[in-house]
Order: sequence, then structure tokens, then C-alpha cells
Amino acid sequence: MADSKPLFSLDGDPMAAEALLRDVFGIVVDEVIRKGTSASEKVCEWKEPEELKRLLDLELRSQGEAPEQILARCRAVIRYSVKTCHPHFFNQLFSGLDPHSLAGRVITESLNTSQYTYEIAPVFVLMEEEVLKKLRALVGWSSGDGVFCPGGSISNMYAMNLARYQRYPDCKQRGLRGLPPLALFTSKECHYSIKKGAAFLGLGTDSVWIVKTDERGKMMPEDLERQISLAEAEGAVPFLVSATSGTTVLGAFDPLEAIADVCQRHGLWLHVDAAWGGSVLLSQTHRHLLDGIQRADSVAWNPHKLLAAGLQCSALLLRDTSNLLRRCHGSQASYLFQQDKFYDVALDTGDKMVQCGRRVDCLKLWLMWKAQGGQGLEQRVDRAFALAWYLVEELKKREGFELVIEPEFVNVCFWFVPPSLRGKQENPDYSERLAKVAPVLKERMVKEGSMMIGYQPHGTRGNFFRMVVANPALTRADMDFLLNELERLGQDL
Amino acid sequence: MADSKPLFSLDGDPMAAEALLRDVFGIVVDEVIRKGTSASEKVCEWKEPEELKRLLDLELRSQGEAPEQILARCRAVIRYSVKTCHPHFFNQLFSGLDPHSLAGRVITESLNTSQYTYEIAPVFVLMEEEVLKKLRALVGWSSGDGVFCPGGSISNMYAMNLARYQRYPDCKQRGLRGLPPLALFTSKECHYSIKKGAAFLGLGTDSVWIVKTDERGKMMPEDLERQISLAEAEGAVPFLVSATSGTTVLGAFDPLEAIADVCQRHGLWLHVDAAWGGSVLLSQTHRHLLDGIQRADSVAWNPHKLLAAGLQCSALLLRDTSNLLRRCHGSQASYLFQQDKFYDVALDTGDKMVQCGRRVDCLKLWLMWKAQGGQGLEQRVDRAFALAWYLVEELKKREGFELVIEPEFVNVCFWFVPPSLRGKQENPDYSERLAKVAPVLKERMVKEGSMMIGYQPHGTRGNFFRMVVANPALTRADMDFLLNELERLGQDL
Repeated sequence: MADSKPLFSLDGDPMAAEALLRDVFGIVVDEVIRKGTSASEKVCEWKEPEELKRLLDLELRSQGEAPEQILARCRAVIRYSVKTCHPHFFNQLFSGLDPHSLAGRVITESLNTSQYTYEIAPVFVLMEEEVLKKLRALVGWSSGDGVFCPGGSISNMYAMNLARYQRYPDCKQRGLRGLPPLALFTSKECHYSIKKGAAFLGLGTDSVWIVKTDERGKMMPEDLERQISLAEAEGAVPFLVSATSGTTVLGAFDPLEAIADVCQRHGLWLHVDAAWGGSVLLSQTHRHLLDGIQRADSVAWNPHKLLAAGLQCSALLLRDTSNLLRRCHGSQASYLFQQDKFYDVALDTGDKMVQCGRRVDCLKLWLMWKAQGGQGLEQRVDRAFALAWYLVEELKKREGFELVIEPEFVNVCFWFVPPSLRGKQENPDYSERLAKVAPVLKERMVKEGSMMIGYQPHGTRGNFFRMVVANPALTRADMDFLLNELERLGQDL
Repeated sequence: MADSKPLFSLDGDPMAAEALLRDVFGIVVDEVIRKGTSASEKVCEWKEPEELKRLLDLELRSQGEAPEQILARCRAVIRYSVKTCHPHFFNQLFSGLDPHSLAGRVITESLNTSQYTYEIAPVFVLMEEEVLKKLRALVGWSSGDGVFCPGGSISNMYAMNLARYQRYPDCKQRGLRGLPPLALFTSKECHYSIKKGAAFLGLGTDSVWIVKTDERGKMMPEDLERQISLAEAEGAVPFLVSATSGTTVLGAFDPLEAIADVCQRHGLWLHVDAAWGGSVLLSQTHRHLLDGIQRADSVAWNPHKLLAAGLQCSALLLRDTSNLLRRCHGSQASYLFQQDKFYDVALDTGDKMVQCGRRVDCLKLWLMWKAQGGQGLEQRVDRAFALAWYLVEELKKREGFELVIEPEFVNVCFWFVPPSLRGKQENPDYSERLAKVAPVLKERMVKEGSMMIGYQPHGTRGNFFRMVVANPALTRADMDFLLNELERLGQDL
């Protein structure tokens, strides 16, 4: 009978399956771990979309393919993918490759379980609790709650939903219709997920009141007060302030103590979006940037960014000890969260979440932490700061570079001023011409594959580069390379 | 200088990093791929939570640990984790281990990129488009849109948000306050994420109107009509029907043609939650169960379930060709979605989503499909049906088993009637005593590690087992094992 033998199974042909995986592991080690992290290799191998489609032969067909063909496909996928682990990939808030984290991720994938019940994830339910406890302790909380989310945007949504539920528990059942208009406050430097989240949660982007920032990109508490008054004058009910620790472009840290004072006066939920800057809490030297975070009600922190824990590792941490998460999201699905189980069903944490199936995101961080220790991770953060400051010093020594602001974090924002624009600051079209430089250099670096660094316009400022010092493998030589390479790429401009 | 050398890097000591990863890959092959899938090994090694905490030594400390200690930790994590790839793990809607999918996941983890821009994910932006196109073609659409989401719950939320935005585009900005009360409709057998989603999106659980099901668990279209009238009579505005293809417990398929007729008459968005049943579209023999799905506006389909693509692989498919996703969710963040890039920025699909960073979930499915072909995947689905029906036949031959309903899918729901209860159906406490059997057997099988199968109460029915035939490695021998093992475990009851 056809159904008495497995179609293609490890039991049926475990040798073939093992052989395939050993081959793929070998390809990953050679092509990603070794070549991908080597400064002498390309960061990326640019192809136009139509050419890349042809090279990859993406179409899914009826017929399967032979093992050697599959291995060739694995090599092609790696070849044409950007090497975010490369020492000259400076493009995002994540980069680098931590081997312990990767080890944790490979184990996670092979075990392929969901985080919702102790029954099927005993190790990971306990581990998640322990990791969240450690992160909370760094915030300054000896108790609380939390969850690993699929990214910081969803962490921020959780915070908004919890804050409105705490104020209006009826809204879980009745929705927003019976409620007064709600208002939340965040700075104009906040991450765009705050507005996206407000729209998704039915609040609407109009419910987001934008607070002014100072010249360094930090929320101005006095303007926060003003916005709260304005919102109230319009009949809205303020319920949440989302402060940012480490803004996306400038890397600014909002003044949390002063903001917490405002929240306290008005009885508002304080959420801190520390997706980027949260990892600074590990550093005794620099954690003062987040002073006051212990007064928050919720904190979003993404160890997949500065700690290189691997996408995604996003914690939402809560000070709450009243089981708010479970009350806000619980629905007691009887097929999954049976109450007559033989163990303590409080361990079935899935009912606290808005996801049902949920990936295991704790092991990679736990294993990396066990290997590096808190001290090792602290050094990693301190080194990133030191390298960023080294870069700033070197950049100031060179003619063709202009800082946007003095950084307080590892975002170094600067213009590269090409030879033809030097000394022309007074020309009326200077800013316009300068704004066109970064896109040209970006195209050149990507097409050569030598480096990747992001740029953006920002407020009234034209395009500038945002250098992100995050990859733990970076050295001063890589900082020098960045400057030399921009000079080389832009020498004819 | 301390900062001129990497802390712990592959450049600094690539040999050590490679050695670690090779060791871990070896452990994964031995302990998960080989032993984890072997019927002669345990499915799980049960430990009480306090004992497991002690065994794992979860605490995160300041000091790092030596490589050999880290490898011991990897072994312990695997040892005490449930083997969802084991042929006797029948507990969830996912199980088994596809080596090609796992290969794709390992490559995904090593490349560690985010799906939002062509710039940093050229291969995966194109690949996601191609995979979504293929899934849409199976639904019956030659055009459309889509996204891979972190699980079916979030896919369902996307559908709700898109449906309300299409009807009331202002709600993105203004929120729900100015709108009439909205109503959505789903059956009482629907997944609990519909209610969770309604609460999260600010609609409130009251906006979910529950439609009756027939004795097989299928939504009754005439009751859907009735509920729509009732909602309208109460002043609510119906906007969405969420039908289910493959309900969680019974595996029922709602009659989509009849439901689509109702939606068409009332101008309602039809969402099909085919998270579980969507993969049946691959089977020429069985896809009639989803007849009418091409009339839906959106479909949620999780290939990580029946196709064993690995957690998570959840597609939300849309029939829309008007760029609804981007209009509904776009926010044009200028630091990420620059409009002056040197390539077609329509390829920067991230702005269509509510997440910012988003994991790559397409490669694992793509690689598996390339290896198996559509034919191979079709056989996998057909085999699951055939094995489920074999199980039903065998179960009917035995005295101690009673079917809950005749299955139409691979969920086989049944009671095990222990010797002391056989022939006692007339006793007044029969149902009550029968409902206590499954939790006892579950405890015994987990503590022995011989098998895992889920149970639940359901409506007025007491606890029964839900057998899920999903693991592609299953054979008739595993079906026989299930029945024999329940008899063995329950012989003294």
C-alpha cells in the first residue's frame, strides 16, 4: 500500500536526509560563516531584479529536483544574498554574526516547537521566563511580566493595547466605540511603528500627538506637557506616552526621568521604546542614558539589534504584577489551555499573547549570554561606543566629512562632502546638491559590493549617511575603511 | 587599544567559531534528526518544572562559560525538549521534520536579514513574491497580493484590518470612534484568534457574531443570514465574514460557495481562515473541500502545519490588485523607504506591513517545494488523508474506541472507552467518567514519553482525543501504535 511507507522521511531514508543536512551545514559554514564575514569578500553581489530572477529560477513546479540541484540552489541563494554579517555592512540597526546565537537558532529550528504550553515547550517556557526576568532586572524591576514578540513594532502595539485596557477594561469586549477619543504622545523622532500601531489598533493616527524634540533629537518634556493640555482641550483623554531610548536615525535618548514626572502627574502609562537603545542597560558606563527607565510601565527591547542575537529577538517587558497580559489577551481556548492538565497550567503562558503559535526566541539569547556572560555582552556594548567615538574623531580630521550632530550613541550621522562641493557652503544650491551625493555613493558601493551604509533625509536636512556601529566584530580598521571608501567612491563628484 | 580588536569574532578567531558551529550541527544531526525522529526513542522526557529548572541551570550570570560547557547545554536543551518530529507526536497541527525545509531555515538564520527592502533582501523579496504567487494560483487567483505573517492569528488580524479599511479608509487616520458599530461573523468552531484579533484591533469581542454550525462543525449559511439581519437590526454594520477551512478541533470545512453567496448579497468581505486546511488545495482529490475559496477576498494559509514547512510559515493571500495592503499600512518611513534609490522602490515591500523588521519565511517553503515538487507535496497531503481513514477503519474494529464524528479531514476525534466503562453508556455518570479518561492517559503517556496526543472538551461533549495525522513520515504502523498504546495505557481504567 502506498500509505504504508513514508513519502520522503527520515525514518524511510535517514541517511539521505542526514547527508543533505550535513552538506547544507557545510555550505553555510563555508559560504556564510567564513566567506560572508571576511572583509576581503563582497558584502553583496548586486543584480538587477530581472536578472536575479533569471539566475535564481524561482518558479515552483510540479516536479521535484535532485539533491545536487538543491545544493546548487542553496549556494545561489547565499551568493546573491546580502551578507549582513560582513564587517562592512553598516546598513541597519542589526549586523554581525554571533556563533552562539546562531547555534541557538539552529537548535530552535530543528526542535520546531511553539512557545504556548509547557506540555510541548517545557524547556523554553522556563527559559523565556528566566531571560525576561534578567532583562527586567536590568531595567530595574524585581518582578513583572513580559513576552518575546515578532519585532519591536508588535511590542509597541502590545504596550498600547495594555495601556488602554488598563484604563478601560471594557474595551476588550466593547471596543473603542463607547470611549472618549484617546490620545497618546510620542516625539517626532519616534519609530514609525507608533503611528502604524495606532492605526492597526483602531485608535487612528490622529490619536498620536507629536511632541517636539530638541536639537539632539530628544523629546522636550515641556512640550509634552503642552501637548497633553492641547489634547485635553480638544476633549481627548491622554492615556500613554511612548518615549524612545535610541531613536532610529539620530540615536537619541529621551529624558526618561522628566517624562516619567509628567506621566506621574497626569496618570499616564509610560512606555519606553528601547528597541534600539535597550542593550545599553548592560553597560555600567553608559546606562545612565536610560536613567528613569525603571519608572516605565512597559519597555520594548530588541536584543537582535545591538547584541546581535539574530532576527527576531524582541522583548516586551512589563512592570505589572497583576496579570494584566493574561486579563487583556486571554481567551481560554479549551483545546489548547485545558484546565484539567496534570501540571500547573499557569505555565501555559500562550494565553497571555495575541499570537497563538509563537516561535521560540529565547534560546538564542540565552545561549549567547551563557557563553559571553553579562560581562562579555557589556564589553560588546562598550566597544561599540568606543568605536563610534573613534570614528567621530577620525571623521573630524578629514576635510570631506561633516557631522550632523555629535552622537551620544552608536549612530554616527554625517555628510560626505565631495571635492566639488567643499568650501561652497554659501552657494544657494549647496544643500540641494549635497543631498544628491549619498544616493550616488550608495549605488556605487552596492554595485561594487564593497560596503553598505544607509542614508536618509531628516526634517529639513538633506540626505546624510547614518553609520551604525553594531557588529561586534568591528575594529578601528573597519572605521578607517568606511572613511577611505567613501572618499574613493566620491572622489570624482 | 582594547577597541582595535574584536571581542569575540569570527575574524578574530574564525576557527573557534567554526568549530563550535560544526560541533553544534553534529549534535543537532545526532540528537534531533536521527534520535528525535526514531520511533524507538522517547517523544519527551518529562520533568517537573522545578526539577527541570535545576537540571538546566537557567540563570544568566556575569561570567561566560567554556565551549565544552556550552555544548553540554545544547545537549541538555535538546534532551528535555519535546521532539515534535517524532513519529508519535500527534499533539498539534504541526509535526514532523522536513529536511529541505530545515535546510532552508538554517540558511535563513545564517543570513539573518529582514524582508523589508530589496536592498538588503534581494533574493527573498523576489522569492516571497513567487511563493505567494504560487499559493494564490492554488486558491484560483492569477493576480493579487499577500504577505508572510508571524502566525495565523496575525494573518487573521490583517484581514480584519484590511476589510474595515476598504470600507472606511478614514479609520486609518481617525480610528473607529466616528464609525457605526461594526460586525463580523464567524462560526462557533472558528479559531480563537478571531475574537482576540477583534479585541486587539479595537473592535471588541462584542463585534464578533457567532454563527451556528451543523453536526459536522460547518458554518450554517442560513444562520449566517440570520445573524447578519440580527446585527443590522441592532444598528451594527456588517463588514466581514470569516469562514474556516479546517477547524481546529473537528477539522471541518465551511461551505464556501454558499457563504460567498451571502457575502456577495450583502457586500461583505469574505476571509477564509485556511491556516489548517489550506494545504488541501494541493490535492486534486481533496481540494473540493475548499470549493468557492476563489471567491474570497483574503485567505490565511499556514504551510507550517500540514506541509511541515517549519514554524512559522503563515501566508495571508489577497485577491486585491489595488494596492490595498500598502494604502492600509503604508507610512513611508523616510529612513528606510527612500524614494531616491537607484532601483525600483516598489520592490521595498516592507511598507505594506504592520511589522518593520520581518523574518524571512519564504525560503524554507520554496526549497522544500523545489525538492519535492508540487506532486510530492500533493502526495504528502493525499497520504495524510489515506492514513487518517485507515485509522478510522482500524478504530472502528476495536471495542474501546468511539468516534466523535466521521472525519472529513485528518483530525480524527474519538474517545477511548476503558474496560470499566464499556457497555455502561446508560449509566448516568458515564459521560462524566469518560471525560476523565483522557487527562489520565495523557499524563501517563507523557510521563512514559511514549506518545503525545491532544484532548479537549468541546461544546457539550466531554474530553476526547484529537488525533492529527500531519507528520509526513507517518505509516500505518504508527496508526496501529496509537491504538495499541492507548489500550495498554488504559487497560486498568
